[in-house]
Amino acid sequence: MKLIKGFPAETEGGPIYQLNVINFMKHAVRNFARQEIISRKLDGTLFRYTYKESYERMQRLANALESIGVKVADRVGVLAWNTHQHYEIYYGLPGMGAVMVTLNLRLAPHDLAYIVNHSEAKYIIVDEDLIQIAENIANLCDKVKGYIIITEKNLKDIETNLIPIYNYEEILSNALPEYKWLNLDENSAYAACYTTGTTGKPKGVYYSHRNLYLQTLMFAAYFSFTVNDVVLQLVPMFHVLGWSMPYAATYVGAKLIFSGKWNLNDVEALTKIMVREKVSLTGGVPAVFMAMLEVIKKMEKKPDFNGTRLICGGSEPPITLMRGFWDETGGEIIHSYGSTEAMSNSTLNSFKPWLKKELPEEELWELKKKQGIIVSGLDVKVVDENGNELPHDGKSSGEVLFRGPWVTTNYYKAPHTMNCFTEDGYFRSGDAGCIDSEGYLKITDRMKDVIKSGGEWISSIDMENSLVSLPEVLEAAVIGVSHPKWDERPLALIVLREEFQSMKKEEIQRHLAKNFAKWQLPEEILFVESIPRTSVGKLNKKVMRTEYQDFFKKS
Amino acid sequence: MKLIKGFPAETEGGPIYQLNVINFMKHAVRNFARQEIISRKLDGTLFRYTYKESYERMQRLANALESIGVKVADRVGVLAWNTHQHYEIYYGLPGMGAVMVTLNLRLAPHDLAYIVNHSEAKYIIVDEDLIQIAENIANLCDKVKGYIIITEKNLKDIETNLIPIYNYEEILSNALPEYKWLNLDENSAYAACYTTGTTGKPKGVYYSHRNLYLQTLMFAAYFSFTVNDVVLQLVPMFHVLGWSMPYAATYVGAKLIFSGKWNLNDVEALTKIMVREKVSLTGGVPAVFMAMLEVIKKMEKKPDFNGTRLICGGSEPPITLMRGFWDETGGEIIHSYGSTEAMSNSTLNSFKPWLKKELPEEELWELKKKQGIIVSGLDVKVVDENGNELPHDGKSSGEVLFRGPWVTTNYYKAPHTMNCFTEDGYFRSGDAGCIDSEGYLKITDRMKDVIKSGGEWISSIDMENSLVSLPEVLEAAVIGVSHPKWDERPLALIVLREEFQSMKKEEIQRHLAKNFAKWQLPEEILFVESIPRTSVGKLNKKVMRTEYQDFFKKS
Repeated sequence: MKLIKGFPAETEGGPIYQLNVINFMKHAVRNFARQEIISRKLDGTLFRYTYKESYERMQRLANALESIGVKVADRVGVLAWNTHQHYEIYYGLPGMGAVMVTLNLRLAPHDLAYIVNHSEAKYIIVDEDLIQIAENIANLCDKVKGYIIITEKNLKDIETNLIPIYNYEEILSNALPEYKWLNLDENSAYAACYTTGTTGKPKGVYYSHRNLYLQTLMFAAYFSFTVNDVVLQLVPMFHVLGWSMPYAATYVGAKLIFSGKWNLNDVEALTKIMVREKVSLTGGVPAVFMAMLEVIKKMEKKPDFNGTRLICGGSEPPITLMRGFWDETGGEIIHSYGSTEAMSNSTLNSFKPWLKKELPEEELWELKKKQGIIVSGLDVKVVDENGNELPHDGKSSGEVLFRGPWVTTNYYKAPHTMNCFTEDGYFRSGDAGCIDSEGYLKITDRMKDVIKSGGEWISSIDMENSLVSLPEVLEAAVIGVSHPKWDERPLALIVLREEFQSMKKEEIQRHLAKNFAKWQLPEEILFVESIPRTSVGKLNKKVMRTEYQDFFKKS
Repeated sequence: MKLIKGFPAETEGGPIYQLNVINFMKHAVRNFARQEIISRKLDGTLFRYTYKESYERMQRLANALESIGVKVADRVGVLAWNTHQHYEIYYGLPGMGAVMVTLNLRLAPHDLAYIVNHSEAKYIIVDEDLIQIAENIANLCDKVKGYIIITEKNLKDIETNLIPIYNYEEILSNALPEYKWLNLDENSAYAACYTTGTTGKPKGVYYSHRNLYLQTLMFAAYFSFTVNDVVLQLVPMFHVLGWSMPYAATYVGAKLIFSGKWNLNDVEALTKIMVREKVSLTGGVPAVFMAMLEVIKKMEKKPDFNGTRLICGGSEPPITLMRGFWDETGGEIIHSYGSTEAMSNSTLNSFKPWLKKELPEEELWELKKKQGIIVSGLDVKVVDENGNELPHDGKSSGEVLFRGPWVTTNYYKAPHTMNCFTEDGYFRSGDAGCIDSEGYLKITDRMKDVIKSGGEWISSIDMENSLVSLPEVLEAAVIGVSHPKWDERPLALIVLREEFQSMKKEEIQRHLAKNFAKWQLPEEILFVESIPRTSVGKLNKKVMRTEYQDFFKKS
């Protein structure tokens, strides 16, 4: 795209004032110093403090990081639950010019180690509770200079072979409570998220301060954040920066609640927090909201979630889920679609006043399943196999391409991935979809071979490669099959060599467990006689997905 | 301010995707093609069309401008009422790379001509109804190549000595309905507004696409614009781009209503439109809302403005006005403060949840009078005479300084004005104010010698200079005095020379009328024996303003 220079409005050298993420917090404290921040501790109790107190600790953190040798442009890994300390790191670390490398605690050790090494992280900040994950990769990451442990204990009471270690609280209390923030070039990296979407090694998306700043403004505007909101952070904060909620909330001065360490067993406790603290905004994958709905159905006194927006992404929320919430609580599930590369939410499924008038109720519920309209700020294109743009007719399906002020245009140091981006600046999402005349996007298929389980990616190609590396395996295919709880779970189809027909499923799972996290392992392994292939000999996933689409529903 | 480069996140050469204002409209049409736009015609009837139709005309306009020779970076003046054509120009003209120079139709001819010449406007687009204003300056502006007249008539039926002239509708219908928008550098000028705030010639503020883009996102987020809103554009669209409402509305796809040509006599008709079209967002100066409240008080069936936000700027809205609206209609007057240099709204007076709980009702109403909290995105400083920052204690008053992504850092080609900006990038607002511990700004005084009448500026210094140029006048001072209808009106104090004691007020008004618009002329002229001066011999406006503060209230 040729850049055209118009009449110059700014002084030479471009705009003076830079879009720095730390400004969200500076301005929030000026206006909303007393606003509350709540953090759920490991024991389930709640810690409470204010924006003002949090901001002081962010400044201490910036000073503390400098004191141990972190410099502008250094990368620092973060391995943490959804806590107030994680929030402090969101601002304090990139505020002093370093880059926050988010570490997905669910990844297999060799993937995590790859990310740490690829980003050349100098330090790793790690929750006491997650020390073992850091220990598992420490030997593989010999360039890491030290580990900062988030703990309430004294360092001497912590058993670990990580060295050297620092105590987050201790270095903060030794640091000054005021920090003069840098006038950082807005194109400097703020953070990096690595995506494990498709084949091969994790791919790094480096977000600039500008990227995040612009996405946050859109998010705050399009999802109508205000100072009256109470925002519950459920999405893991290592994920595309926790879907950007902690930024939009800060931007308007909303009350923030961090969910701590949690899994589906904690949903009841979290639901109670939602009721007690009058949460008006939260986000999660369908599996989480389904569990929440089960909890609510058993409650005698139904919570009043009137006006509460439950932003639901990762996969299509079923109508039963959306209606369930609406009927039981008055809360609205809002479908939103995003990706690491397009920095979280690219769509929003909200009704337009005229559609509300025109469509019968059943059609409105059907419409709510779609991914939604593409937010302003992003260009979108649906293209056929030859790259020709398809009409917005609600039928023509092709690959969905995005570009915009916060969509990445390259993976960091990964020249072999340039085919993921077009020459005119679009990111190829790898998802197939169609857009209707009202602008609603519906994702119809996935072009990349990936499986999405509980909002997390599993690469089927990597798993297939691992399977066929077994001498006993002749052919293997791994597909994502719809699952009532996890959206999708991997199903492996295996053709054993004639001489090894006696091989057991358990042996195969044990083999995979060496390279995949436990939750990534196939939900089921089926020994089959042949695997469908396309005319050019590729695995025909489409046929397999159709054949096994009800597999986990039946079982 | 030294710029620090961090770890590079973007490809070399900075971000690829530019913040272009035309994107608001492109994206709005993708998502909200059927949304309605209403425009009030000269005869009071309403014209209706859709975003889609409007967008087609914007593309025709871009092609039409090219066809008559407008090029990237050219400046084009616009002299128009609040109409749908004006809205088309907002996007079509800068979308093709030219700069929209807004012309305040209330300025005196020599000021208007100065703006046209200083900006080197190549063409002027003018409402048929405003042709005379263009004619008044045509002789002074010999570089203007032509005039595009917005009219429903044929050119031959229009009497004017402007040459050459083009018919807006005709050139649009001759142009193609599709235009390939440029990938314009975001630092290119989008528009220019000239401010006549203080002494001397009008000063040009040139806004870049980036400036406007970022201000719009803030505005949409902070004022909670949504697609469900119905936005009535009352503020003149030549004013700091109509306070940015038409952009924020487009950004979210809200319904837009343009008020056409109107004055206080039309407020009843406009109020009826508000009721009929269910307006939920509008903005204006207190004088307008006061007139509206009078209309409402006389209505038998009170309008239901529950949830409607009436953004009120220009000067402090009286409590009686705010309570009146609240009691009669349920509508909320929201005080907001801004300036041409800081691109409209810099503050917003909204309540925080905790203040609502803590403060008694009377104190909340008092609080609502303040200018409000400074929106996120802007840095603010209150400084004493030596430039030292004052604490946010609600008492310490000093000059209010702003900087941020849409605050100008210089006036165009006006090197003598550099003292209006600080070295670290702040704009000196010329207003004195204090900020309380909750972040609410209260403007306490004006440091510049200007008078604000009905939201428009009158320079007292220019008028004083004109007065003392009369041989009969020994001394003269012009001050702004609080006025029940116009917020402030100019009052002139004059010491006549002994030998000319018989001079009449009318002669003085006639003299001023040569250089000032009619509405700028002093509301009253008082012949006095002496004029208070400060110790260093300057006019002591503070003393005069106190002495005459009730002058127009009494009369």
